[in-house]
Amino acid sequence: MFQLPAIPLPDASIAEKARQRQNMLTKPTGSLGRLEELSVQLAAAQHSIRPDVSRKVVVVMAGDHGVTREGVSAYPSDVTPQMVHNFLQGGAAINVLSRLAGARVCVVDMGVAADFPANSGVIDCKIARGTGNIAAGPAMSRLEAEQSIKRGMEVAFQEIGRGANLIATGDMGIGNTTPSSAIAAVLTGLPVAQVTGRGTGVDDAGLAAKISIIEKAIQVNKPDKNDPIDVLAKVGGFEIGGLAGLVLGAASRGVTVVVDGFISTAAALLAYELTPKIQPYLIAAHKSVEIGQRAMLEKMGIEPLLDLGMRLGEGTGSALAFHLIEASVRILNDMATFESAGVSDKE
Amino acid sequence: MFQLPAIPLPDASIAEKARQRQNMLTKPTGSLGRLEELSVQLAAAQHSIRPDVSRKVVVVMAGDHGVTREGVSAYPSDVTPQMVHNFLQGGAAINVLSRLAGARVCVVDMGVAADFPANSGVIDCKIARGTGNIAAGPAMSRLEAEQSIKRGMEVAFQEIGRGANLIATGDMGIGNTTPSSAIAAVLTGLPVAQVTGRGTGVDDAGLAAKISIIEKAIQVNKPDKNDPIDVLAKVGGFEIGGLAGLVLGAASRGVTVVVDGFISTAAALLAYELTPKIQPYLIAAHKSVEIGQRAMLEKMGIEPLLDLGMRLGEGTGSALAFHLIEASVRILNDMATFESAGVSDKE
Repeated sequence: MFQLPAIPLPDASIAEKARQRQNMLTKPTGSLGRLEELSVQLAAAQHSIRPDVSRKVVVVMAGDHGVTREGVSAYPSDVTPQMVHNFLQGGAAINVLSRLAGARVCVVDMGVAADFPANSGVIDCKIARGTGNIAAGPAMSRLEAEQSIKRGMEVAFQEIGRGANLIATGDMGIGNTTPSSAIAAVLTGLPVAQVTGRGTGVDDAGLAAKISIIEKAIQVNKPDKNDPIDVLAKVGGFEIGGLAGLVLGAASRGVTVVVDGFISTAAALLAYELTPKIQPYLIAAHKSVEIGQRAMLEKMGIEPLLDLGMRLGEGTGSALAFHLIEASVRILNDMATFESAGVSDKE
Repeated sequence: MFQLPAIPLPDASIAEKARQRQNMLTKPTGSLGRLEELSVQLAAAQHSIRPDVSRKVVVVMAGDHGVTREGVSAYPSDVTPQMVHNFLQGGAAINVLSRLAGARVCVVDMGVAADFPANSGVIDCKIARGTGNIAAGPAMSRLEAEQSIKRGMEVAFQEIGRGANLIATGDMGIGNTTPSSAIAAVLTGLPVAQVTGRGTGVDDAGLAAKISIIEKAIQVNKPDKNDPIDVLAKVGGFEIGGLAGLVLGAASRGVTVVVDGFISTAAALLAYELTPKIQPYLIAAHKSVEIGQRAMLEKMGIEPLLDLGMRLGEGTGSALAFHLIEASVRILNDMATFESAGVSDKE
């Protein structure tokens, strides 16, 4: 049976001390807005008034989706392994943005329908070669769903063991906005049409077809919205389960997770439904163009940092958000106080 | 008489080539949203398909304001020179964020009511020791207004001469949201109450008093909204004039300017009213908490990149935006194409 990890509480007294320090720094109280909040969140999570996010990693989890047989994506499934190779060679957007952010990229095969050589650099967590077609049956078995979460947790433990103190989620999987919309619809209770977007770029007819395929998937599989593992098994994906596990694993060690866009948010929501105690360890990187993300973020009570009209995935939003998070910590750690700088405080 | 510089046109054919290259990179078309647009804007501005923003500088211009005698700010005027010292010692928020962004900070005295030693590191462009009290008369003479713009332009030329290829505006001046709101009201035609916020943090009574002081300043001085120099002279500030000049100077050399928050936006709008040709060289860094910024950005047709609830000034929003701008250029310059990476394009 699947064993949920214990999630520690953030330190409220450290949060208070970080807030007090923010108010002593040479700036009007609260004038750095969300940067101040972020620094307090990280201080509390790390139980340290001097939080450290210097060792950042983006974990990009990849998987294939049987539902692509229904024509839900503008790209062929071959692109999943091709993009994994691109990640390994450093040519993808996530590589460029991670280099700029000073972050490592870690590529995980959760269920790509192709094999990678042993020395390729991919972390092998493959559950199976792609999911089943959710329009016709479950994506995976319950055991596979549990395994995908477990392996995701293990990746978090491994990265934290190597020193990571800030972890970002990233995804690659042609067709994966379809299971993510299905998860969003089931867990938020909203109609499918309200949580389904164009993914990598289907046209109007493609969008209408995608919506009815998701509706069919939910009808055929009848996922139990009170059982997140069932939802993952019936209408999810291997990389989505892996990312849910990554979030759980990181939070269980007190490490904050930067949740990327739509697919990552669906994964984070699955983890949140398993235990809402992970919430203080989440940072939403950005508002995705995919309309289904909003309601899921609201359910978790988190606000995205950026809104740049992005819809790429891979962890690209997270990699950009890294800079803001690093900035928040530098402000807390490096700024002069009114006293040290000899600046008069408010009258 | 004041001589407006000629503003070159961005290169539309280079913009088109940059757009074409974005579409060849290994990502769905348009999926990086505003990052793609930024890279195209910079390519066109620099007349280069490989834009370069590696040499960034934040120009923080400081000045004092006679209107502080009316009690419009939560902080005493002494804080202006104290914060200038803080900038020079590297302890302010703008120093911390600029270090993180790999940017230089250049501190300019446009009109602080205190003197700095010759070797302090401040660039001396002082027009006078603080402006007049706009509630009782003009901020400065027309000649001083022209001089402040001219000196701001010279700072831009000097920084570009030293190699700067991306310039950000920053401000320091206790009381300077008051003239900025006055400028916003005059140039947008909106009622003062709709463009006036709490600055560094006045309370409800303070806000009401601030609004009536600005209304009085406009009534007493009768600035001519069709004459930006007159608006600057009557209800502006020396650092605001300097920043308007900085924007004009940079744009005249084809260098893009990252406009910070409320005060910087008022300065940019003055420059825009002098010549709207500067528009393609503007990037709005962030949405300020100050409500008057919105209408001014709309007048110039530019959208802020970030929205983090900030209201500090100094160029802090710009310093954060630098990362997004650098990211946009790296994407254009460093990503693999579908062809080079062997990734299948759309079906």
